[in-house]
Amino acid sequence: MKAAARVGRPPKTAARASAREDLLKAAHELMSERSSIDVPVAEIAARAGLNVALVAYYFGGKDALLLELAVGHQARFSGELEKLLARPGTADGKLRVHVRAMIRAFRRVPYLQRLNHRILRASSDEAARKLAEALVAPLAAFYERLIDEGVAEGVFRRVDPMHLYLTINGACDMLFSAQASLRFGFGVEAVDDATAEAYAEHLETTLLSGLLAPV
Amino acid sequence: MKAAARVGRPPKTAARASAREDLLKAAHELMSERSSIDVPVAEIAARAGLNVALVAYYFGGKDALLLELAVGHQARFSGELEKLLARPGTADGKLRVHVRAMIRAFRRVPYLQRLNHRILRASSDEAARKLAEALVAPLAAFYERLIDEGVAEGVFRRVDPMHLYLTINGACDMLFSAQASLRFGFGVEAVDDATAEAYAEHLETTLLSGLLAPV
Repeated sequence: MKAAARVGRPPKTAARASAREDLLKAAHELMSERSSIDVPVAEIAARAGLNVALVAYYFGGKDALLLELAVGHQARFSGELEKLLARPGTADGKLRVHVRAMIRAFRRVPYLQRLNHRILRASSDEAARKLAEALVAPLAAFYERLIDEGVAEGVFRRVDPMHLYLTINGACDMLFSAQASLRFGFGVEAVDDATAEAYAEHLETTLLSGLLAPV
Repeated sequence: MKAAARVGRPPKTAARASAREDLLKAAHELMSERSSIDVPVAEIAARAGLNVALVAYYFGGKDALLLELAVGHQARFSGELEKLLARPGTADGKLRVHVRAMIRAFRRVPYLQRLNHRILRASSDEAARKLAEALVAPLAAFYERLIDEGVAEGVFRRVDPMHLYLTINGACDMLFSAQASLRFGFGVEAVDDATAEAYAEHLETTLLSGLLAPV
């Protein structure tokens, strides 16, 4: 496909699917690189090598593009949560796997939490309710079932699923949203493999001891 | 002072100090009410009952106004950290007090973390370095000393101060930045006294058990 054709009018069929994907990919790359969700639509289009008008053409606007991106990420992650619950093993082992998976998910999509919050805040009540079902409910259900399993097995004390959601998601998000604090407050230039691994280890140990059933 | 005088040209002395404070207060109120740091400068001025040009006159611009607000909040909180370390008592008790103080601080200033991150991200390297000294270094130093005390007393295992910073600040921030998730994912309409108290209790118990020295 020639660049001229892409910039002119909307391409068809395979090219159309590719242009949609290219815009989603460009938004993802820019937000990841800048560790910020404040990315102008013109820059998203420029990165994809497409005319900015195509964002409106394919998605209806930048907000809808970002929404599709967020829902796509979440759908992939929700599938992983289901598989994890269905595995054999005890709840403490599953929590361990989940914390690692969360850190990996945030490394792939460091802006995910902030994007979800912004979309939910900016939506009408009815839209936000539907969105929360896609973005928050799978995690809420996962924590509820995990805690029930852990309490039944005697490895967890009874904790509120919302509290666990806030603690894990907040602690994971912070590693990726506070990069300037890490850099200038702690001398950590980038969240590389070693930094992510050490933090996952800390979080896993802290949570597993912190949620232990009283002896 | 008449409203007309305030809207006309910049007032003097006491009135000037008051107009500055009014703008800071207006920004604080709007960001708190909306649980968002995306507040237009025109609305800040309107809430203060002042002409929007006075933001530039007193602060040089909206970014500088927000910076002054963030540094002011942090300075008050840093004073509390110093007092807490100087108290008699063991490190686990001080951590307990700190978690409660953090939840209280976030309730007073729910947007603080997000504002700090945005300011740090948007600054030049040199400016961000200076800012981090005001915004992050006091907490970093506090955690370092608290962990040293706790390890010496045998109540904490050795943890990285940065990890503790990320866990506590991330977990506390999430309660106040994820309000739409709480509402639609967990049916919690507002972070009231009971919600904040229950979460502080969860976080305190989880962290204190999670940081325990191995027996």
